[in-house]
Amino acid sequence: MSYQIKSKIWIEHNSQTYLGEGRIRLMQQIIKLGSISAAAKSMKMSYKKAWEMIDSINKSSKKPLVIKVTGGKGGGGTQVTAEGIKTIAIFENLNKKCQQFLDKEIAKINL
Amino acid sequence: MSYQIKSKIWIEHNSQTYLGEGRIRLMQQIIKLGSISAAAKSMKMSYKKAWEMIDSINKSSKKPLVIKVTGGKGGGGTQVTAEGIKTIAIFENLNKKCQQFLDKEIAKINL
Repeated sequence: MSYQIKSKIWIEHNSQTYLGEGRIRLMQQIIKLGSISAAAKSMKMSYKKAWEMIDSINKSSKKPLVIKVTGGKGGGGTQVTAEGIKTIAIFENLNKKCQQFLDKEIAKINL
Repeated sequence: MSYQIKSKIWIEHNSQTYLGEGRIRLMQQIIKLGSISAAAKSMKMSYKKAWEMIDSINKSSKKPLVIKVTGGKGGGGTQVTAEGIKTIAIFENLNKKCQQFLDKEIAKINL
């Protein structure tokens, strides 16, 4: 029989979710779509919920990961900061390393 | 700021859940309480749901992890086999190793 090991990771700050799969996905959709409302819609999430997630992320970060920009060509929108992009990469790397670690561990086991 | 990394692991067989936190807990409650119905009740789960979980676990295992025993002093009940006890230990060890790995990884990161 062949078994696969799966995992889910998330990061907490003061026992509250700081970053998890959904929040990372939301930031990625903001990068792709340029606004919280479009990102929320693409994830079938209310604007309010998405805004609260972003607010919670920013409050637990040293520097904001997502900012509102006003004016400019497109009339403004929402941007993921350089710090945000770095943080997404850190999370994805942790996720990948965790999966690689578990794949190696399960290969040693005879279930 | 201090961040904690959390994780959840589960094992799949043919893309279906084989073992996860809930199934391990159910087997532990069967060991403790001696029957599926008592174990299910302690987890606020229906007997049907618990039975289906046990059936699914056994179908994906080389040897059954949980068996029904009839007769004897207490009039029979449900037992986790030696194979089941070993499997619970394997799962818990994987879980622990995963958490230790992630704790080490997050300590290296400046979020």
